[in-house]
Amino acid sequence: MPSWDSLIRFEAAEDGVTYWAALALDTVPVAGLKVPGFASIEALERHGSSRAVTVKKLLAPTPNQSIPIYCIGLNYRNHAEEAKLIPPTYPPMWYKPAAALANHEDDILFPTVAHSNFPDFEGELAVILRGPIKSISTADVSSSILGYTIGNDLTARMFQDPKRCGGQYTYAKAFDAFAPLGPRLVHPSKFVPSAPTTLVTRVNGEVVQQSPLDFIYPVEDVASFISQGTTIPHGTVIMTGTPAGVGWFQEPKSPLKDGDVVEVEIQPIGILSNKIVFEK
Amino acid sequence: MPSWDSLIRFEAAEDGVTYWAALALDTVPVAGLKVPGFASIEALERHGSSRAVTVKKLLAPTPNQSIPIYCIGLNYRNHAEEAKLIPPTYPPMWYKPAAALANHEDDILFPTVAHSNFPDFEGELAVILRGPIKSISTADVSSSILGYTIGNDLTARMFQDPKRCGGQYTYAKAFDAFAPLGPRLVHPSKFVPSAPTTLVTRVNGEVVQQSPLDFIYPVEDVASFISQGTTIPHGTVIMTGTPAGVGWFQEPKSPLKDGDVVEVEIQPIGILSNKIVFEK
Repeated sequence: MPSWDSLIRFEAAEDGVTYWAALALDTVPVAGLKVPGFASIEALERHGSSRAVTVKKLLAPTPNQSIPIYCIGLNYRNHAEEAKLIPPTYPPMWYKPAAALANHEDDILFPTVAHSNFPDFEGELAVILRGPIKSISTADVSSSILGYTIGNDLTARMFQDPKRCGGQYTYAKAFDAFAPLGPRLVHPSKFVPSAPTTLVTRVNGEVVQQSPLDFIYPVEDVASFISQGTTIPHGTVIMTGTPAGVGWFQEPKSPLKDGDVVEVEIQPIGILSNKIVFEK
Repeated sequence: MPSWDSLIRFEAAEDGVTYWAALALDTVPVAGLKVPGFASIEALERHGSSRAVTVKKLLAPTPNQSIPIYCIGLNYRNHAEEAKLIPPTYPPMWYKPAAALANHEDDILFPTVAHSNFPDFEGELAVILRGPIKSISTADVSSSILGYTIGNDLTARMFQDPKRCGGQYTYAKAFDAFAPLGPRLVHPSKFVPSAPTTLVTRVNGEVVQQSPLDFIYPVEDVASFISQGTTIPHGTVIMTGTPAGVGWFQEPKSPLKDGDVVEVEIQPIGILSNKIVFEK
């Protein structure tokens, strides 16, 4: 039996300090909850000392906030079809830098260079790894999964144009706060990505993405692939790709606007919600 | 007047500790030099305390070894021509992770997945930034350049194939130790990248790349571009792209072999040398 079903990382109302706490799956992660707060996941798992605190603000539920975030592309056939791209042999991958990390309910400030180049959402399942790992086999991945959360791979879509940035996706997606993550981390014994589970993205309440989690590149294959010859630090986040429905492929094309609220929902993880704010 | 013309970062023979030291431009950076060692560049610049030590091993001359390395593509017309690619409006960019950093004269262990997929070299000028910077103008870049060194953007070329990894370059270049850097850092008052300066790459002594530093995207444009809306940490390395001559575009194609020694020379920085060792 795991010592937790889901975890939140949060700032406490009492002292402004960052804690981790365990939550039952049927408890919605929100501000105001009163929980025993632990200094780290390790302290929680070994039943170390805790403090009774109140959740003031939920934080991205990863134990390492200073490393790049892996992004995977073309992991859903429905998105590959709307993009008119053939999924390659191996998963397309790139990084977002550490400064891209943001929290559930953060306002995401879109700098001018991003909001004038077609701001877009990508609702995604995110995996967080126990590490460090290197050159692990697909069969060995499961023991290296710390848990699952939800991400939004925010994108200034026009920079993905080969004529503008040579077809490399990094620049379009690497702006500060372009990787909100949350609201909580669910234990891998309580969540397995599979087709019966649905990812839903809403913009201002309207459903824009709705897809089963039927990955072309399963999580085990992705984690093994990226670890070959490469040291993957503890707490590494993998954003696993987005399904059909992004604004760029709508008729007419539909960019995010100043003030839009984007929600990404995968149950039983919850709903990741962020407001888009254009830098003036 | 700057307080240094060039700097080395090194492990000292006496105590195994890492130090920084200033070197005159006409002193070749090699093991065995006896120098005053400082704990940091800042300590050296404020004439803080130092210790008389002997250089045992040169280390990558960047003050931050735990952040991703920026890579720029298609920055030379002669390389764009051999690749049959049209340089886009903005510089193509991607990251290598922190674990890719390696030192002058390190043996570079190529994991099986890399050496069986066309190992290749890319000799490059590398810029190291004073930071943090964000959203700076081209005109403001010069005061944010800490110095220049040499890099080798080692690559498992076959993973750049769009049919294999979707055309994203990251995976091909992100293996551990695939970013050797050195042998020293030259002050921006003593080195300005420009066409009269030549980059030369040799494999086992044979010249394979020889090109003027005539960038399509000048350093000031690149640094300003990547900083828009994005926090660039202190000590960030930008590898500025490679000229014509990589093994993939030779007739016949010429991959690196086990035991090959790759040298990249840009004077007055020096020569970055590494031996390629295939993992068995």
